[in-house]
Amino acid sequence: MSKFQATASAPVNIACIKYWGKRDTKLILPTNSSLSVTLDQDHLRSKTTSRADASFEKDRLWLNGKEEEIKPAGRTATCIKELRRLRCEFEGANPNEPKIADLHLHISSFNNFPTAAGLASSASGFAALVSSLAALYKLPATQSELSLIARQGSGSACRSLFGGYVAWNMGSKTDGTDSIAEEIAPRSHWPEMHALICVVSDDKKGTSSTVDVPLLQHRITSIVPERMERITDAIRRRDFNTFADVTMRDSNQFHATLLDTDPPIFYMNDVSRTIIAIITELNRASVAAGGSLKAAYTYDAGRTPTPRLEDPFRLFSQEETPGLGALPLGFNVGVAKKYQIGGVKGFIHTRVGDGPRVLGDEEALLDQHGLPLAELNVSS
Amino acid sequence: MSKFQATASAPVNIACIKYWGKRDTKLILPTNSSLSVTLDQDHLRSKTTSRADASFEKDRLWLNGKEEEIKPAGRTATCIKELRRLRCEFEGANPNEPKIADLHLHISSFNNFPTAAGLASSASGFAALVSSLAALYKLPATQSELSLIARQGSGSACRSLFGGYVAWNMGSKTDGTDSIAEEIAPRSHWPEMHALICVVSDDKKGTSSTVDVPLLQHRITSIVPERMERITDAIRRRDFNTFADVTMRDSNQFHATLLDTDPPIFYMNDVSRTIIAIITELNRASVAAGGSLKAAYTYDAGRTPTPRLEDPFRLFSQEETPGLGALPLGFNVGVAKKYQIGGVKGFIHTRVGDGPRVLGDEEALLDQHGLPLAELNVSS
Repeated sequence: MSKFQATASAPVNIACIKYWGKRDTKLILPTNSSLSVTLDQDHLRSKTTSRADASFEKDRLWLNGKEEEIKPAGRTATCIKELRRLRCEFEGANPNEPKIADLHLHISSFNNFPTAAGLASSASGFAALVSSLAALYKLPATQSELSLIARQGSGSACRSLFGGYVAWNMGSKTDGTDSIAEEIAPRSHWPEMHALICVVSDDKKGTSSTVDVPLLQHRITSIVPERMERITDAIRRRDFNTFADVTMRDSNQFHATLLDTDPPIFYMNDVSRTIIAIITELNRASVAAGGSLKAAYTYDAGRTPTPRLEDPFRLFSQEETPGLGALPLGFNVGVAKKYQIGGVKGFIHTRVGDGPRVLGDEEALLDQHGLPLAELNVSS
Repeated sequence: MSKFQATASAPVNIACIKYWGKRDTKLILPTNSSLSVTLDQDHLRSKTTSRADASFEKDRLWLNGKEEEIKPAGRTATCIKELRRLRCEFEGANPNEPKIADLHLHISSFNNFPTAAGLASSASGFAALVSSLAALYKLPATQSELSLIARQGSGSACRSLFGGYVAWNMGSKTDGTDSIAEEIAPRSHWPEMHALICVVSDDKKGTSSTVDVPLLQHRITSIVPERMERITDAIRRRDFNTFADVTMRDSNQFHATLLDTDPPIFYMNDVSRTIIAIITELNRASVAAGGSLKAAYTYDAGRTPTPRLEDPFRLFSQEETPGLGALPLGFNVGVAKKYQIGGVKGFIHTRVGDGPRVLGDEEALLDQHGLPLAELNVSS
């Protein structure tokens, strides 16, 4: 009897047009479209092995080697159920295929980055889960069709099903069937692009905020649609000036809407402000010297529920060492306030990456008994 | 020959509904209405003496003892011109009054608070200037009529012409004749209200921002009008819960719109965030213990053009020592991050105050030659 197993890896993505607010929390339908850049899996990725076997007594899941409960109506269960449904259809249409849709699953997933680094693993994690099951089930679905399922695991996971530059179109249907991700351009389209991830340490206050955000509705209806068009066009034309301008404005506006909650949410601290000041000055000096923008910043929202926040900040540039190797003439070093060691917890210099990869069995994360194998190079 | 001289003092005010954006920069017509609380002149005030004399060769002005040029089309000149015009009308209607409208003026003004404390002196300063000239000229104008003139000196100065709780109605006319301030309630209406001013030191980055603020228009048209109504009604009913809620939300939204500029403007730092966290926790614990809100914060925008920013933060409370004397049961002291000495530069504990006062000649700030007298108790 052959082994029904597949392993896949999926990348992390960074939103340049940010998503906040859901019109349907169960289906994870967003209130605005978003656009992201996929990062290189050679540096950051989630990897998942899924196996179906008649000997398994129930569906089981291990994250970084630790078993997690699959809650009946939870997001993991939803993704598994949807992919099983597609496998059933596939088996119905292809009577010679083995009947594995009803077999229980063992799933083992590892991230190669420490979750303590503040990088959200839900996007790459659900993208890897969906990719491994789609490979196991040999589903004839397109990546955009799979994005409908990954989206129900974690909204931004739908964008991690593609490499390069990815749009998540919010859609308008109540069943979510038009809320899908699609590739704007592959990584090869703009090879000069670099990304630097900088983890800013911070203490996060515990109070939770209401979802009453007066400025958010205006952002959703009047601002994001035009920005989606502008940045998509900029990517197609490899226009870094516009790409950088829209990315920085959208990061600032996203954090502005966070500040407009009650109580206000702050994901940026004085170190973040200093980094913004440095990049602003770098770009100002470059433009003043007759050049163009050198780099763009964007700040994530960090992980809300935890008492300690690590705020990952991402910087895009078309240069190897963004702006640091050769400062433009007239750069005012006075903008860089000195901070204690520890203000910045770490840097990861990476580039734009490809979409999920189906890997060979030699990379599998389940042993012969269907239990998780420890993965090398894991620092979680 | 009698001396034509008058001395007046005027208070500082704090905006609870904040003003940002002008539809006419010359007339200083705002893009939204605003509402403020006047602080007690016994603690913070500007004081101005104006004298008209046939021996004076030109209009002259001293601020804190230092002579300042009165620029021909500047804001001080505009205020003087408007008040002279009213004096001309008054002399025309009252032929027995002395003809002093055409005499040159000497004006001396002092603030009793150091400008280095980050408190804007333009509101109290222009209110004192207008009040002293109106007294000198014996103008039969109402305070709201005078507010039209003070507004052209410094927008928020129109609110310093009243005590207690003051609305500045934006108006809609292009000539600004309906953009006036008016009293909502006098200080005596709500004697329990206390105010604590806290000066947070910070380094301000030098880059100036554009006035392209996508979220501001929405705030102006859709949010401020309803908030003006809510807080006005709350003041009339002495409803501190609503007053505090609107004040804190408006401060946060104001700073959110500042963050939505390019490059972003940050007037709050990690110390400001900590103060917000403390007040949020104070209120949360009080409400959880069956009480009501204890205090409200609001943050000013500081003084933009200077390289160093002192960010004054104001706290309202109905208690003598706001929340500090008796912390509510369940208050989580963990929200208060420790900062180095110097993070907070100073506190001023004050209360709601009255409007401008006309003072006797014993308080005059000009000597027998019409030159500025040094004032006691000045720490500028």
